[in-house]
Amino acid sequence: MLIVKKFGGTSVADKERIMNVARRCIKDYQAGNDVVVVLSAMGKQTDVLIDMAKDINPNPSKRELDMLLTTGEQTSVALMAMAMSMLGVPAVSLNAFQVAMHTTSVYGNARLKRIDTERIRNELDLKKIVIVTGFQGVNKYDDLTTLGRGGSDTTAVALAAALHADKCEIYTDVDGVYTADPRIVKKARKMKEITYDEMLDLATLGAGVLHNRSVEMAKKYNVELVVRSSLNESEGTVVKEETKVERMLVSGVAADKNVTRISLVGLKDKPGIAFRVFDILAKANINVDMILQSIGRSGSKDISFTIPRDACNDALKALEDNMERLGNPEISHNDKVAKVSIVGAGMMSNPGVAARMFECFYNSNININMISTSEIRVTVLIDEKETEKAMNAVHEAFGLED
Amino acid sequence: MLIVKKFGGTSVADKERIMNVARRCIKDYQAGNDVVVVLSAMGKQTDVLIDMAKDINPNPSKRELDMLLTTGEQTSVALMAMAMSMLGVPAVSLNAFQVAMHTTSVYGNARLKRIDTERIRNELDLKKIVIVTGFQGVNKYDDLTTLGRGGSDTTAVALAAALHADKCEIYTDVDGVYTADPRIVKKARKMKEITYDEMLDLATLGAGVLHNRSVEMAKKYNVELVVRSSLNESEGTVVKEETKVERMLVSGVAADKNVTRISLVGLKDKPGIAFRVFDILAKANINVDMILQSIGRSGSKDISFTIPRDACNDALKALEDNMERLGNPEISHNDKVAKVSIVGAGMMSNPGVAARMFECFYNSNININMISTSEIRVTVLIDEKETEKAMNAVHEAFGLED
Repeated sequence: MLIVKKFGGTSVADKERIMNVARRCIKDYQAGNDVVVVLSAMGKQTDVLIDMAKDINPNPSKRELDMLLTTGEQTSVALMAMAMSMLGVPAVSLNAFQVAMHTTSVYGNARLKRIDTERIRNELDLKKIVIVTGFQGVNKYDDLTTLGRGGSDTTAVALAAALHADKCEIYTDVDGVYTADPRIVKKARKMKEITYDEMLDLATLGAGVLHNRSVEMAKKYNVELVVRSSLNESEGTVVKEETKVERMLVSGVAADKNVTRISLVGLKDKPGIAFRVFDILAKANINVDMILQSIGRSGSKDISFTIPRDACNDALKALEDNMERLGNPEISHNDKVAKVSIVGAGMMSNPGVAARMFECFYNSNININMISTSEIRVTVLIDEKETEKAMNAVHEAFGLED
Repeated sequence: MLIVKKFGGTSVADKERIMNVARRCIKDYQAGNDVVVVLSAMGKQTDVLIDMAKDINPNPSKRELDMLLTTGEQTSVALMAMAMSMLGVPAVSLNAFQVAMHTTSVYGNARLKRIDTERIRNELDLKKIVIVTGFQGVNKYDDLTTLGRGGSDTTAVALAAALHADKCEIYTDVDGVYTADPRIVKKARKMKEITYDEMLDLATLGAGVLHNRSVEMAKKYNVELVVRSSLNESEGTVVKEETKVERMLVSGVAADKNVTRISLVGLKDKPGIAFRVFDILAKANINVDMILQSIGRSGSKDISFTIPRDACNDALKALEDNMERLGNPEISHNDKVAKVSIVGAGMMSNPGVAARMFECFYNSNININMISTSEIRVTVLIDEKETEKAMNAVHEAFGLED
């Protein structure tokens, strides 16, 4: 078997943890597998480097910032190779140049385009454990790039796809994907399996275990992902294609408090007004999530939408700068809201799911602000302070603890 | 003019010093020059990385150690580019992969073979200051290598040669090359000019300003070197070819206390005995410096030689393991000795120089242990505690303070 194993910064934060990861990888190696390890920078090293940069230049060039940050993973892979060789196993570290991880040109948020596998295959043939820098690549100018948030997960999945690996294990500080955040829902249960689409929705909705870009890539190339704990030997959760997973009606509940709702009341009721609103926001680079449009009083329209909380000021400013164009609506916003979502591949063929969710909110006396649905997801916007109650109620209503 | 400027770790140890170096380079840039800057790792960063490595593996692979250490210069060049752009000047940092600094394969002590100049020239054409990682290269396996002690000086000289630079300025914490160490000889004088050969001898003899490998390369490619202070604007010392320098009889005095003398008394007086002694030492990887052979009592020979102080135990062990082969000589050693040397291109045509040095030692009542000479150098071994007295006496005897 060829296994790609990815460990985050916390897992390689100091000597003891590096040795632990080394031992864990060696176990797979000694069982006869080819092992490729992807690492992030040690602990908070990336933040330390960013602070160093900002101390010199509060607005450093992204090209130079990537040049600086990529030293972080190079440090951790070199130390890991030394740790493995200390434990008697041949290992070699490779950076983005050495592997040839081709990315787009965008510094700070590049996308992987192509990974050469020749060097890695040669090193595996020499019976070495191959340790690769996560998060980084090289663009067409021969400059170093970084992949943005969750970048090392993406590196691992892309490597697994390029090498046709048998599985890709993502090690985190939790031991798998849960039906809900166990800190909030005491009865939350670790899932054995989940589909790519469910995982994608959970990732987007704030479950935070995997970055959605890596899940998208795993889906595209059909890479079997395993989310496991770096702290214990527990089995973890397997993320794979739908046909292999038993369809659950609802597989998980997620909440996201990074939300502000903005309402425009009294927009002119004429064609193109919704376009105008969202065009203004798009030009201000603001990602809009849920949208609700309703008929207002006397031939006017009301539009409400949600955005990430830190984009609130920018959004309000963009709208205020265009008041005339919008027909001077009343603008209000509320950041004491949260999104609660249920996700499940089985929903598609079960029309009653949303209704059951609303019923359970009604029974719990939780007011619903906005509703948004997809084929495998129902999201509602509620008062922020009801989040925990709502999650527990839904978790129980759908019997997720079993 | 195209100027290559090299700054060591002390010069870029923190934010303030990085900004100082940036301002200094920008001055040359704004005067209309093309500027290429070579940097070492910040402050003691290389030592910090070596300690991290040894903490994990006391005997790390040299390949992985180079992978680790090369992050040091990459960090300093990225920060320098940010500093320059903060000061409003376009700059770009390049590592060994990006420049394409081809070296031999030996990790930890590689030699530069070839430097591609295309990328650097392109960046200079875009009117950028180009900041290059010193000390590192890439070998034929696409692995990172380091150049060993004084490596960043060598990078700077090699770049200056490859780019046909008009000069190569090496910034240090002293403001030039002195006729003797100013901490020991109060009347030591900074030299305006010195030849490559004189500088080479001074470097080898412990003057410590430039590493001899970089001087050798400067001589080979006829690169005009300037040794200057990073702390002040003083002119520094120019190192260039002999025809351009006024021949001084003696241009400098140097001392080296990192010496142990070993004596073998009562060796068999037959052909090949000297070969045996130094073959044994060569096989133990010990660099022998001065050698003195004399006729001993009743058909036996005595051989004395000097080695670096930290090689003493290895040397004694190697000799003791071969006592029989050597005819059981008496072995003694003395590490309370020092070498004092005078260097000068003018010596070649002046046979009286050595004699004048010995006379001055006689006048100062300093006993000479061993003597060794080259065309442009005379070295004597004396009692360590006489070092300072000897240096001052010689400095005065040859009128170097003028």
